Amino acid sequence: MAADKRIAVIGASGYGGLQTLRLLADHPHFSVTFLGGERSSGRRWSEITPFLPLHGDPVVRTPEPEAIAAVADLAVLSLPNGLAARLVPELLQRGVKVVDLSADYRYRSLAQWQEVYASEARETPRQDNDLCQEAVYGLVEWEEEQIRAARLVAAPGCFPTASLLALLPFLKQGLIEPAGIIIDAKTGTSGGGRAAKENLLLAEAAEAVAPYGVVGHRHTSEIEQIASQVVGHPVALQFSPHLMPMVRGLLATVYARLGDPGLTAVDCTTLLQAAYRHSPSVDVLPVGTYPSTKWVRNTNRALLSVQVDRRTGQLIVMSAIDNLIKGQAGQGVQCLNLMAGLPASTGLPLLPFYP
Amino acid sequence: MAADKRIAVIGASGYGGLQTLRLLADHPHFSVTFLGGERSSGRRWSEITPFLPLHGDPVVRTPEPEAIAAVADLAVLSLPNGLAARLVPELLQRGVKVVDLSADYRYRSLAQWQEVYASEARETPRQDNDLCQEAVYGLVEWEEEQIRAARLVAAPGCFPTASLLALLPFLKQGLIEPAGIIIDAKTGTSGGGRAAKENLLLAEAAEAVAPYGVVGHRHTSEIEQIASQVVGHPVALQFSPHLMPMVRGLLATVYARLGDPGLTAVDCTTLLQAAYRHSPSVDVLPVGTYPSTKWVRNTNRALLSVQVDRRTGQLIVMSAIDNLIKGQAGQGVQCLNLMAGLPASTGLPLLPFYP
Amino acid sequence: MAADKRIAVIGASGYGGLQTLRLLADHPHFSVTFLGGERSSGRRWSEITPFLPLHGDPVVRTPEPEAIAAVADLAVLSLPNGLAARLVPELLQRGVKVVDLSADYRYRSLAQWQEVYASEARETPRQDNDLCQEAVYGLVEWEEEQIRAARLVAAPGCFPTASLLALLPFLKQGLIEPAGIIIDAKTGTSGGGRAAKENLLLAEAAEAVAPYGVVGHRHTSEIEQIASQVVGHPVALQFSPHLMPMVRGLLATVYARLGDPGLTAVDCTTLLQAAYRHSPSVDVLPVGTYPSTKWVRNTNRALLSVQVDRRTGQLIVMSAIDNLIKGQAGQGVQCLNLMAGLPASTGLPLLPFYP
Amino acid sequence: MAADKRIAVIGASGYGGLQTLRLLADHPHFSVTFLGGERSSGRRWSEITPFLPLHGDPVVRTPEPEAIAAVADLAVLSLPNGLAARLVPELLQRGVKVVDLSADYRYRSLAQWQEVYASEARETPRQDNDLCQEAVYGLVEWEEEQIRAARLVAAPGCFPTASLLALLPFLKQGLIEPAGIIIDAKTGTSGGGRAAKENLLLAEAAEAVAPYGVVGHRHTSEIEQIASQVVGHPVALQFSPHLMPMVRGLLATVYARLGDPGLTAVDCTTLLQAAYRHSPSVDVLPVGTYPSTKWVRNTNRALLSVQVDRRTGQLIVMSAIDNLIKGQAGQGVQCLNLMAGLPASTGLPLLPFYP
Repeated sequence: MAADKRIAVIGASGYGGLQTLRLLADHPHFSVTFLGGERSSGRRWSEITPFLPLHGDPVVRTPEPEAIAAVADLAVLSLPNGLAARLVPELLQRGVKVVDLSADYRYRSLAQWQEVYASEARETPRQDNDLCQEAVYGLVEWEEEQIRAARLVAAPGCFPTASLLALLPFLKQGLIEPAGIIIDAKTGTSGGGRAAKENLLLAEAAEAVAPYGVVGHRHTSEIEQIASQVVGHPVALQFSPHLMPMVRGLLATVYARLGDPGLTAVDCTTLLQAAYRHSPSVDVLPVGTYPSTKWVRNTNRALLSVQVDRRTGQLIVMSAIDNLIKGQAGQGVQCLNLMAGLPASTGLPLLPFYP
Repeated sequence: MAADKRIAVIGASGYGGLQTLRLLADHPHFSVTFLGGERSSGRRWSEITPFLPLHGDPVVRTPEPEAIAAVADLAVLSLPNGLAARLVPELLQRGVKVVDLSADYRYRSLAQWQEVYASEARETPRQDNDLCQEAVYGLVEWEEEQIRAARLVAAPGCFPTASLLALLPFLKQGLIEPAGIIIDAKTGTSGGGRAAKENLLLAEAAEAVAPYGVVGHRHTSEIEQIASQVVGHPVALQFSPHLMPMVRGLLATVYARLGDPGLTAVDCTTLLQAAYRHSPSVDVLPVGTYPSTKWVRNTNRALLSVQVDRRTGQLIVMSAIDNLIKGQAGQGVQCLNLMAGLPASTGLPLLPFYP
Repeated sequence: MAADKRIAVIGASGYGGLQTLRLLADHPHFSVTFLGGERSSGRRWSEITPFLPLHGDPVVRTPEPEAIAAVADLAVLSLPNGLAARLVPELLQRGVKVVDLSADYRYRSLAQWQEVYASEARETPRQDNDLCQEAVYGLVEWEEEQIRAARLVAAPGCFPTASLLALLPFLKQGLIEPAGIIIDAKTGTSGGGRAAKENLLLAEAAEAVAPYGVVGHRHTSEIEQIASQVVGHPVALQFSPHLMPMVRGLLATVYARLGDPGLTAVDCTTLLQAAYRHSPSVDVLPVGTYPSTKWVRNTNRALLSVQVDRRTGQLIVMSAIDNLIKGQAGQGVQCLNLMAGLPASTGLPLLPFYP
Repeated sequence: MAADKRIAVIGASGYGGLQTLRLLADHPHFSVTFLGGERSSGRRWSEITPFLPLHGDPVVRTPEPEAIAAVADLAVLSLPNGLAARLVPELLQRGVKVVDLSADYRYRSLAQWQEVYASEARETPRQDNDLCQEAVYGLVEWEEEQIRAARLVAAPGCFPTASLLALLPFLKQGLIEPAGIIIDAKTGTSGGGRAAKENLLLAEAAEAVAPYGVVGHRHTSEIEQIASQVVGHPVALQFSPHLMPMVRGLLATVYARLGDPGLTAVDCTTLLQAAYRHSPSVDVLPVGTYPSTKWVRNTNRALLSVQVDRRTGQLIVMSAIDNLIKGQAGQGVQCLNLMAGLPASTGLPLLPFYP
C-alpha cells in the first residue's frame, strides 16, 4: 500500500488552486504542506479566503523550489501559462514530482508550444525540450500506466478532456472518419479564470451566449495532437468554443461521420461502455438520455451519451464535465493519486448535489 | 400609403402573445382591438398582467371568429400547435388575414404536418390541405413578395429562422455542399413557453447546459423543407438544439463544407452582406467579430458572422437572434407590416439595451 | 459507540428527498433501505434520476408503514405539508423514529397548525395533538439534548433556521428589544420545490428580484413561536421573504434594536462565537466580512456576521445557509445523527466548492 | 414648443454612457453631437461597440470643454466620481448645461462630498463649493421646477432614487417616524460599473447573494440628506445594500413605523398614488401585488407597492427600478428633457419586454 504523501499547491488562490485545495481537504492520503502564491505571499489563508477554512490556517509563501522540496513529495502547479516552466526543472531536480495544470508541458515539442503560446513564449525563454518530451499527458483514462511512472504530468485542458474522452474510443477503433470532425463546445465562465476581465463580468456574460476563438483556439492543436497520435497520421478538426452564462460546467457536442453506416446508437454506446468499464470517473448514459452539465457539477465525473442519425451517417457524442474538476483540478488529483500508487479516483467526489 | 390596421392577438398571455402586444404598443399604424385567450377569458388584462399596462385595460375574450372579424383586419395567433388550425379557416372565410406563430401551416402538405406533429394531429383532425398549400412561409427576408400578397402566413420557428438566415445565401449560390451540414443550436428557456414544466424551472435549468431532441427534433424537417426548396433536391442535415441557462436569445452555429476551398471569410461576409443589404433587421458583422445573443436581446435584429477554416475547408456561420422576437413575435409583426403594405421593419426595435 | 442504522427516505424525488439521499450516500453509519414515493412507485431509481446513481439501483415503493418498519430504523419524510401526518402515527407505533421535513409537527399545538396551514388542514383531518406536543423542534444547535431523546423531530423551515440562528443568542441574553425586529430574507428558487410552477420558471425568475408573502408568510408564526418561548412572552416580528434569481442559498438580514447602545460589533461577534463554539455547522465571521450564500452552497454550514450602527443603535445580523441542506435535508441528517447517538455533523459537508 | 437640442455624452463606453446613448437613439428631439471618452479617444464607435450601431458611426473624442461647447447645448457626464468636477466648471462657463450622473454635485456642500468621497477628494482637489450649492438634485418627481431652471443637475444614485421615491411621500406628510427607518436594498451587478472587478465576475457573483457596505455605504448619507431636508431636521437611517445574481434591476424594501396605527395598506396606497399622479414614470401597484425588478427592466418606470402589518405597526414600501435607467441614465434623460422644456418622460421607454 502507498504511503501518505505531502502535497504543495502553487497558485493557491486561482480557481485551479482553490479546487485542488478543496478536493485535497477530503483526501484520505494526502495533506497539503505548502501553499504557494506570488501576490498573496506572506498573508494568512483565512484573510484572503474566508470561505474555505484550511486546517492550521497556513500562511501563503513565495514558491521557492528549495522551500517546496523541504516539505513536499509532490507539487500541483496552477499558474498562468509560461510560469510553470520557470519552476518545474528545479522542482524535478530536487526530487519533487509535478502535476502541472497549465499548457506548458502539454506538447511533445517545445517548438510547438512556442508556436501555439507565442506571447507567453516571448515572456518566458525556455530550453527544456527534454522535459516537454518526458512529460506525460495526464488524460487519466488513456495514460494511466505512464502517469503512474511519471515525474512530470501535464494535465489536459478542459476542452481537450471532454472532447478526447468522446472521440478516442471511436478513433482508436477506426469507426469514424478522421476528417470532418466537428467539436462544438460550451463552457461556463470560470474557465476564463479568476483574474478580472470585462467580458467575464456577470453584467456582460449573463443572459448571453457567444462563440469565441472560432478557428484557431489553442485547444484545437492540443486535441489534434492526441487524436493524431491515436490515428497514426495528422488529423485536422473543427473546434468552436462558446461562452455560456453559468459558473461551471462544460459540454462538448462532437460530430463525426461513421465509417460503417450500419452502426446504431446502441452499438456505439456499448463500445463506449466497454472502453470506460474500468474508469469510475466516466459513465455512459443509455441512448436517448443526454447529459446536463448540472449532472456533473462539483464532481470529477464525465458523462457521455451517443446518438446516431441513420439518414446522414453522423455520429454525435455528447460529453459533459465540470471544467474545474474533471477539466482541471480533479484530473490533477487523479494524476497525483496514480503517481502515489493509489487508484485514480481516490478521494474524489462523483455524485452531484442536484439541483 | 397603407391605412392603419386593427389587430387581434389570440393567445395573449403566453410569451408569443405578450411579445406581440408589447411590440404593437409601440407601433405607429396598428392598434390591438381584440385580445383572445381561453383560460383568462372574461378577466381584465391588468389583473393577469400587472406588469404590462395596455391602453384601455381590455377584457380578454374567448376567440370566436365572428367576434374577431367584427373588430379586426388581421389576427396574430399564438396558440399551442394544433389549435390554430381550428380557428384559421373560419377567420379567413370572414376576411380576416392571419399570421400564425404555430407550426400548423409551416409545411406545404397536411400529410407532412400530421407526420411530424403526430400527437397534435391525433387531437386535431384536419382537412385543410388546401390552406397548407396556400400558406406562405413567413421568413421575411426571403419571402417578402409572397407575404405581401398572402391571406395566411405561417411564421417560422425560432431555430429555422436563425438557421435559414445563415444557410440560404450559401445554398442558393451553390457555395456549400448540401450534404453534411451541421447546425448546433443554443436557446434560452423561454423557447419552451410559459406553461410550467419541471425541466424549465430555474432550479433545474440554471447552471446547466444540455442537449435535447438530438436527431429528430421537429424543427429539423422544417429547416430541411426550405433548404430543399432552395437547392432543388432533398437535403438532410444535422440539427442539435441545446438548452441554455438564460431567458432569451438563440444562437445557431452552422457548419458546412465549402465547394470552392479558395473562398475566404471576407468573401463569404461580402456575400452575406449583399444578400441582406435591403433587410434592416439582418446585419453581418466583420470577420473576427462574433455575435452574442445579448447583442440582439429584446430586438428584431439577426446578427450573422462568418469564419472559414482553410485547413479543413469548413465554413462556419454564426447566427444570433432573440428567440421571442425575430424568432417569433417580431417576425410575426414583420409579416403583419408586409400584409398591411408597410415596410417590414416598421415599429420594431433594432437596438439592444446593453448590458 | 452507536450501531449503524437503516434509513427510509420518503418523498425521494423532490428536492428534500434528493438532498437527503445525496447526503446519506457519503454517510459512514447510515444506509438507505427504503425509497418511498407515490408518483414514481414501482419504477427503478436510475430511470427517474439518471444523474444520481444509488447503490443497488433500488425500486421506488409506495410508502406503507408496515413495509417501512420491516427494513428501517429511522425514516426521513420529505412530503408536501399535510401528508406526513398521515404516515407518522403508524410509523411511530411500529417503532420507526421519524424526522419530518414538513411543517406538520413544527407547532406545539394542532390548533395552531390548523390555523396557519388552513388549506392543508381541510385536506387532512388530524387528531394527533399529542404528537404535536411530543415532537421536538429540530433546530439542532438549540435542541440537541431533546432531539437525541426524541421519537419524532420536526425539522425547521429554511427561513426559521437562518433567522433563529441569528436571533436566539441575542434574545436569550436579553440584549435586543423583542419588539421591532425585522427579518428581510432572500432565497433561491429551489425553496419553492420541484413541482412545476409558472413563477419559478427560469424565464420568469431569472433576472428578477421580488418580494412575496409580505406580512403573513407562514414562516413568520414559526419564527415567532420559538422566539416567544425563548423570551418568555409573545413576540411579533416582521418577516419579508424575497425570491432571488439563483438555485440555492438563503440569506436572512436581521435588524434589531440593541438594549445597551454601548455594545460594539466586536462584542456581539464574541457573543455569537461563544454561543456556537460547540457547533461545527455554525461559524461566525470577523466584523466587516459579510457572508455570501455562495460560501455555504452545497454545505451544511451556517455563516453569521454582525454589524452595529452606533448612530441608530441597530444591530444587524446576517445569516447565510444553503436552503436545501442546513435549511432542510442537512438539518434532517443532523437530527438523524443525534437520534442515532452520533455527533450532529457526522458525514455532512462543511466546505464549499467555490466558485 | 422647445427647439431640438444637441447633446454631448461624456464617458460613452461605460454603462451609464451606453444607456444614455441607447435612450437618445429613440429620442424625438435630441441628437448626440459629441461622444467623449478618454481610453477610447480617437477610435470609431463601431470598433469598440459593434453591438450598438450609432448614426454616422462617430469617432470618440477627448472631452475638451471647448470642443464640446462648439457642438452641444447640453452634456451628460457619466464619469467615475471626482472626474466630473474637473470638467463641469468649464462647461458651464461656455454655456453648456450639464447633467452629471456621478456623485460630485449631489451634496449641498463641498465639505460633505469631501468627507464621504474622501479617496476621490484626495485625487481631485476642488474649490467649487458654489457649484455644489447651485446644483439641483435631479430626483425628477420631486424637483421638477428646479431642474427645469437649472444649469447643473446632479442625478441621484440608484439606491437613493428607489429609496426616496418610496419614503418621501410619507415623510413629507409626517405619517412615519423619521427614526428607525430601515432600507434593505438589492441590486444587480451592473450597478458596480463596467470596469472589471473580481467580485463582479459571473463566476463569483452568480449563484450568490451577499450584503456589502453594511453601515456606512456612501448612499446612506445621500438618502439622509434629502430625507432631512424634507423632514426639517437630521434623519439617521439604516441602509443595507445586497448584491444580486442578475444584470440589472434594483429593489428597495423600506421599513418604517407608522405614526397613526390606524392607517391601512389601502390608505397608504392611495396616498402614494396621489403623490405620483402626474408622474408617468412612477406607478403604484394595488395592495397585495408586489413589484418584480423584471417588470421595470429596460424601462424608466418605478413601481411601488405598500403593505402594512397591523400587529407591529410597520409600513413596508417596496420600490423597484432599473438601476441603469430610472436609477441612472433614464433619470438623466428626464433631467435633459426638463432642461430643454420638454415633458420629463419624453422619449423614454415605460413598458418592459417580458420575460
